[in-house]
Amino acid sequence: MTEPELWRELGQQLRVDSIRCAAVPKSGHPTSSMSAADLLAVLLAKHLRYDFDQPDDPHNDHLIFSKGHASPLVYSVFKAAGAITDEELLTFRKFGSRLEGHPTPKVPWVDVATGSLGQGLPIAVGVALAGKKLDRLPYHVWCVCGDSEIAEGSMWEAFEHAAFYGLDNLIAILDINRLGQRGETMHGWDLSSYTRRAEAFGWAAIEIDGHDVEAIDRAYEEALSTSGRPTAIIARTLKGKGVKAVENKDGWHGKALDDPEAAIAELGGERHIVVDVDKPDADAQPHTFETGPLELPQYDVGSEVATRKAYGDALLALGKARGDVVALDGEVSNSTYAEEFAKELPERYFEMYIAEQQMVAAAVGLQVRKWKPFASSFAAFFSRAYDFVRMAAISQANIRLSGSHAGVSIGEDGPSQMALEDLAAFRAVHGSTVLYPSDANQTAKLVAAMADLDGISFIRTTRGATPVVYAPDDEFPVGGARVARDGDDVTLVGAGITLHEALKAADALAEEGVSARVIDLYSVKPVDVDTLREAAEATQGRIIVAEDHWPEGGLGEAVLSALAGEELRFTHLAVREMPGSGKPAELLAAAGIDAEHIAAAARELVAAAAVSR
Amino acid sequence: MTEPELWRELGQQLRVDSIRCAAVPKSGHPTSSMSAADLLAVLLAKHLRYDFDQPDDPHNDHLIFSKGHASPLVYSVFKAAGAITDEELLTFRKFGSRLEGHPTPKVPWVDVATGSLGQGLPIAVGVALAGKKLDRLPYHVWCVCGDSEIAEGSMWEAFEHAAFYGLDNLIAILDINRLGQRGETMHGWDLSSYTRRAEAFGWAAIEIDGHDVEAIDRAYEEALSTSGRPTAIIARTLKGKGVKAVENKDGWHGKALDDPEAAIAELGGERHIVVDVDKPDADAQPHTFETGPLELPQYDVGSEVATRKAYGDALLALGKARGDVVALDGEVSNSTYAEEFAKELPERYFEMYIAEQQMVAAAVGLQVRKWKPFASSFAAFFSRAYDFVRMAAISQANIRLSGSHAGVSIGEDGPSQMALEDLAAFRAVHGSTVLYPSDANQTAKLVAAMADLDGISFIRTTRGATPVVYAPDDEFPVGGARVARDGDDVTLVGAGITLHEALKAADALAEEGVSARVIDLYSVKPVDVDTLREAAEATQGRIIVAEDHWPEGGLGEAVLSALAGEELRFTHLAVREMPGSGKPAELLAAAGIDAEHIAAAARELVAAAAVSR
Repeated sequence: MTEPELWRELGQQLRVDSIRCAAVPKSGHPTSSMSAADLLAVLLAKHLRYDFDQPDDPHNDHLIFSKGHASPLVYSVFKAAGAITDEELLTFRKFGSRLEGHPTPKVPWVDVATGSLGQGLPIAVGVALAGKKLDRLPYHVWCVCGDSEIAEGSMWEAFEHAAFYGLDNLIAILDINRLGQRGETMHGWDLSSYTRRAEAFGWAAIEIDGHDVEAIDRAYEEALSTSGRPTAIIARTLKGKGVKAVENKDGWHGKALDDPEAAIAELGGERHIVVDVDKPDADAQPHTFETGPLELPQYDVGSEVATRKAYGDALLALGKARGDVVALDGEVSNSTYAEEFAKELPERYFEMYIAEQQMVAAAVGLQVRKWKPFASSFAAFFSRAYDFVRMAAISQANIRLSGSHAGVSIGEDGPSQMALEDLAAFRAVHGSTVLYPSDANQTAKLVAAMADLDGISFIRTTRGATPVVYAPDDEFPVGGARVARDGDDVTLVGAGITLHEALKAADALAEEGVSARVIDLYSVKPVDVDTLREAAEATQGRIIVAEDHWPEGGLGEAVLSALAGEELRFTHLAVREMPGSGKPAELLAAAGIDAEHIAAAARELVAAAAVSR
Repeated sequence: MTEPELWRELGQQLRVDSIRCAAVPKSGHPTSSMSAADLLAVLLAKHLRYDFDQPDDPHNDHLIFSKGHASPLVYSVFKAAGAITDEELLTFRKFGSRLEGHPTPKVPWVDVATGSLGQGLPIAVGVALAGKKLDRLPYHVWCVCGDSEIAEGSMWEAFEHAAFYGLDNLIAILDINRLGQRGETMHGWDLSSYTRRAEAFGWAAIEIDGHDVEAIDRAYEEALSTSGRPTAIIARTLKGKGVKAVENKDGWHGKALDDPEAAIAELGGERHIVVDVDKPDADAQPHTFETGPLELPQYDVGSEVATRKAYGDALLALGKARGDVVALDGEVSNSTYAEEFAKELPERYFEMYIAEQQMVAAAVGLQVRKWKPFASSFAAFFSRAYDFVRMAAISQANIRLSGSHAGVSIGEDGPSQMALEDLAAFRAVHGSTVLYPSDANQTAKLVAAMADLDGISFIRTTRGATPVVYAPDDEFPVGGARVARDGDDVTLVGAGITLHEALKAADALAEEGVSARVIDLYSVKPVDVDTLREAAEATQGRIIVAEDHWPEGGLGEAVLSALAGEELRFTHLAVREMPGSGKPAELLAAAGIDAEHIAAAARELVAAAAVSR
């Protein structure tokens, strides 16, 4: 068999296998797989450099299906590479199978979960950044994109950043099959519309017939030899290619074929070609950066330091100590203090401009190659990347996010800049860690701990300077809570800015003979159930939670969940009206979460009967 | 004074006033205002058609500052238009003033809140859509954009959709002042990079010197006479223009000037020009669509209907009854059933392709003109637009969102398509309404109610068919809960898919002599505290919540918040491990939220002691 003959056969095999595996559960996206089958056949048989026995080999190319719904094709490719058996292929979408409806890293050759469209390419930008700027290895990142998903703005963030960073190790394969889920895409088969856009954004673009294997081969050759900029291969394809009943027909998205047997026959029957995929050249070693002892910043008790500043200081210290720590920021590094890292360790800093989706995606991509990314912005603006955070959890990604400017305490800038939903959003991410430190020394310790946390970790920092209340050598384990003040009449729970308000309230109450216990709930998730339970018992069930957040899903509900079943006299102080501009103290007072309101709530609870026990 | 002389004087006034108002709180963004001052001077004095006495006049142009941080300029423009006094101007950022750090509709001439960058232009697309396709009036939408924010992918969603819909009534004014918050933007003053991109996306583009008032005037004339496509005016400007201490200098973003007096003198001192802004031509009347009686779909009790299908049916019925109802969908209308509306009422349907940010932004823009938008996608994919939803609440926008395919019950598609955080996210939006109906008749009633709800309302629907359990004429008030089954041993709380599991569990328990009350918590926010409290009292504090959602921020915590202070025996069944693919029943069982697990939890609670009362 000549090479092109092999490619064509392999393309047919990938189609047949896509149909076969979707036929079992009678669901999935075979037609979206069939359009890209030839593109993958040529890639697998000739251009991909990948050791399927060693998916963690740093020299491997990366293959990311941004169009994750083409999972039948993904798994058919793995079968063709000899990585999975035909038998396993047929477990597609079955309960317990790792071959899920959309690919996830439960399968070792899948870097990241996709299936929310428009995410694979921005993540691929992150992997390519790692290759070019950190690992400094010649691997390539191949990213298979659908045409429908090009409507997602995140794709254009990726186009922009890939060009800006000169990522010639990134090759996007655009499978232009014309048909979306419910009809034609915006641009149909107008390939030039994609070419114009890609070129305007600084990419090389090559238009081809995506079923002409020799043209595909030439396009890959050209892409591999293009330097200084990424390449988009814009391939005109047919959805459902090769099977008349579905080819280029509307109404066949996300459906198994009606008559798989006939379709398989039409495609020439089953094949079981196994390709000996070329392994990567393993000569070069991945670059590493210098490491040293960790010298966290220390702050004097009684001084006033913003926790966002402590984040920046600690991140720099961590970066100096650990060569695997990298930083990203969304054009606000002078506010988040990530600029300290940027200035001293520029080789490991990535400016992501105002593109939070790309920032989180890049973090996910960097961690694919085992780097430890810390990405920062205003906490409110992580809401822009919430779908990326959600998907990062499915990707089993280990990323660290720092959100500054939390709550009404930011003051004059007004509600658009105030994170008031971030705790709720991040708590509702599977396996997440949510931290909200109250002082600078605590922040430094938690930032250091984040480097070794698995999953999505989020640290919420405060804009204004707050008193340093803990000693530099105090420890703050993730999952703990700190009894900042002992007491037995009432418990005041706060974190971040409200911890200081609670402490002031406790001072005022003490003068009146009311003994308030103050809990610093710096670890919002996981939450320290034991410390909360002890406090509830010690203070006769009287608990006040004060938080600079909407009432839903934040500190208050974390405490209620921790104490579900306990009888409480519970008062929840949170932001209940839309704030405006003003001085931080004015806004804390208006929201009813300052020391005065906390003390008043405490007086009321103490005056009421204790709970019966 | 000649026109150009007036424009130049007015530009200086806008700069001076921007400096003056920021000088009072010593914060804000005067330099970002100064760059765009001449652009606004010419617009206000000659091209804007706006009756400042009648901000709701449908014939008015719309002026949206996508770069919301240029709020000093916004308010200075309002002063120049005679809409606010100089005295009020100087209340900028003061507690209680409506002139907040970023503009909000508390000020009647502000359509929408901006300040999270990259949102104004996509919202402007929505307003322009309303003008072109619904109101059918000749007003224009002027949108002032910053250069930093063009890095947001949402801007390119807007570019794409504006061109696709031929919005020649939309004019984007790009203030290319080169400097972002922490340094130079990606493209600096390379105006051609913006022109190339805009033209590739199908826009007309005009490059000008943004301080040459005559060039600005010519550009506006050209934009107003361009038909068939939107225009981007790409203006090279100087940040801090006119004041040497800050002009084109880094480090002056978001800061009041050090020496405002000197700066004002350098700009020629205070001026108090009031422009007589041209009023719009009020000849044409806004188009309206036919209305008729509301005939909601009705479903037979005992039949099986997916609530997403009932959404589609009810939306169509609503659209036929009310000419002000419009629908949008993110390229999944055959899954969300918005296609029913699309097919029968195509004039009021907007296909937003896979661009959820643009979809929500368009909804916000449409409601600026009093239309009642319903936007649908998979519930999981609203996470893509979370920042837009957050900002929509600040915009006091009335929009309705429908999220289908909730939770593990979708089955084989796997976790990327499963909304498991949406209830938490939407509950944590100020003033939101969160609905999660359990049957088709209930869905229809709630969809009808949504049309008249203020704020952000979200309805979560289920993919699979579920039994119709309520009669078509049953009522389901927003904020209510339904006692679906009476009982006094234990309360089972569910909604959507878990309501049916709870009913099955109650059946099984009844056979064992355990009397379970079943609460259908279809209104997750506001939640029906009274019905929950009654249930707790009636069932000795024994409450089980089962939800197809992560444990954080959903039904369980809504119930705990409602019952805070009550002593409960509380069991919370929620999705705690990352689900995979499988049949819905397999996944419900694996997550421990099916009837069997609910019944087991009930048996355990009933066996334990009742709470003391």
